[in-house]
Amino acid sequence: MDNIKNGWFTESNDLWPGQRTSLEIEEILYEGRSEFQNIMVLKSKSRGRILILDGIIQCTEHDEFSYQEMISFLPLCAHPNPKKVLIVGGGDGGVAREIAKHPLVEEIIQVEIDAKVVEVSKKYLPFMAEGFRSPKMKLKICDGFEYMRRHQMEFDVIVTDSSDPIGPAVNLFTESYFQLLKRALKSNGIICSQAGTVWVGIEHAKTTIDNCKKHFNVVKYALASVPTYPTGQIGFLLGSLDEGNVLDEPKNVFDENESKEMGLRYYNEDVHRSAFVLPNFVRRVFQF
Amino acid sequence: MDNIKNGWFTESNDLWPGQRTSLEIEEILYEGRSEFQNIMVLKSKSRGRILILDGIIQCTEHDEFSYQEMISFLPLCAHPNPKKVLIVGGGDGGVAREIAKHPLVEEIIQVEIDAKVVEVSKKYLPFMAEGFRSPKMKLKICDGFEYMRRHQMEFDVIVTDSSDPIGPAVNLFTESYFQLLKRALKSNGIICSQAGTVWVGIEHAKTTIDNCKKHFNVVKYALASVPTYPTGQIGFLLGSLDEGNVLDEPKNVFDENESKEMGLRYYNEDVHRSAFVLPNFVRRVFQF
Repeated sequence: MDNIKNGWFTESNDLWPGQRTSLEIEEILYEGRSEFQNIMVLKSKSRGRILILDGIIQCTEHDEFSYQEMISFLPLCAHPNPKKVLIVGGGDGGVAREIAKHPLVEEIIQVEIDAKVVEVSKKYLPFMAEGFRSPKMKLKICDGFEYMRRHQMEFDVIVTDSSDPIGPAVNLFTESYFQLLKRALKSNGIICSQAGTVWVGIEHAKTTIDNCKKHFNVVKYALASVPTYPTGQIGFLLGSLDEGNVLDEPKNVFDENESKEMGLRYYNEDVHRSAFVLPNFVRRVFQF
Repeated sequence: MDNIKNGWFTESNDLWPGQRTSLEIEEILYEGRSEFQNIMVLKSKSRGRILILDGIIQCTEHDEFSYQEMISFLPLCAHPNPKKVLIVGGGDGGVAREIAKHPLVEEIIQVEIDAKVVEVSKKYLPFMAEGFRSPKMKLKICDGFEYMRRHQMEFDVIVTDSSDPIGPAVNLFTESYFQLLKRALKSNGIICSQAGTVWVGIEHAKTTIDNCKKHFNVVKYALASVPTYPTGQIGFLLGSLDEGNVLDEPKNVFDENESKEMGLRYYNEDVHRSAFVLPNFVRRVFQF
């Protein structure tokens, strides 16, 4: 806990050198180690409860919704009929919570390698972990790679909700991972993965896009605002096997009443389209 | 300089309590006090040179372009013929640099209250201060309120590039300020002002919008990503006296070649349109 001092938690990491984010802490709710990583849940003064894995903030109660909604509804609404969905990672339950909301989704399989993250989230982050209570959900504690090798041509949508490309998540950004995703999808399937930030190390995002392009016919990159993440923004990589699929045009839309009932605080059809609009410096590197 | 410790500068402020941003520092290039505020220029390890006023980061070399381009080109391109432009504030020169690029702009008046900020920027932030060298530019060191009282129905576009609503900038968010702006504009004039963040204290942005609506026929809010600002995002308030002006549709557009020649790294016509697309939680509060 050398990252907590005088009542402040500080995040610092080699992925974004020379910068640190600090949050004032009211209480340490949990601290422990699983087989895979260090897990901490803090109660902060300004952002509610925070989940931290290996010293890196995964989500805060106040702004997690933009991330969870976007990584879920971008691929779900880009798909004409997303019945069966696989979540890789996402042990806090936030992505499952969002995907379970979609009226066309009938079945959700989630594979998370770290049972401890699920257990801790259920106890200390109930607003996230409510996803696990959906009758559509089947949670499997196992390795996502192994699971996908045994399940081919099965899913309409696969969401990879990983931590950053260090530690256990490093393999989720490689070409062989995209090959595995491709095989686990039905012929018109769509994937969506967390894909870093364009403001620090844009080359890493470019490499991930190029890896994805080797196996997917349509590849796009979308942006969302998440204040607590370094640079305040995160990118998502979307890939479609159907070469006719224009990913930035939502196939299913919700009106304001439906949206309120579903508890959507960030995502709407205009946000969907505009998330794919990239600033010049990004467009030029990605060559979109 | 109690905000520099062990080679790190830390920004902390009551406007965004419970959170702090820290940047690793290589060198303190300037530190002094003007009649109005404390001024500091630091060389950081990861974001280049940084201008800090009263302890708050105004811009960093690595990401200032998104702010300067958006606060300038959103109103300029929303206007059919922006010939004469007034800049209120903007002492670092970054906004002048962008506005001078627009081919239709013939004359730029800038009123900045603090001569010291201009002097320091010219010396230590030459990439910003190059705006002052444009032949279109007339810089006046005086109070913006006073200047506008003496110049009515004169400008096509007025950009208010202020610091946050504490200290010298607090009056730039009030109803009487918008009244003053209205009178200084020609009949189809457009304003654009820095308007805080929607992620902390959204009520303040809502109040500013309501103040603006009392004097402008069309009022809109746009978003841009600026990693170094608290929450990583900043909002801009745009107002038009011409009730037929759809602010989110650019009237002048630049192709990729023109854009590269103008050195536009963030702004393009699609970014213009999508900047006005707001997440549900913002749209619901602003009632747009």
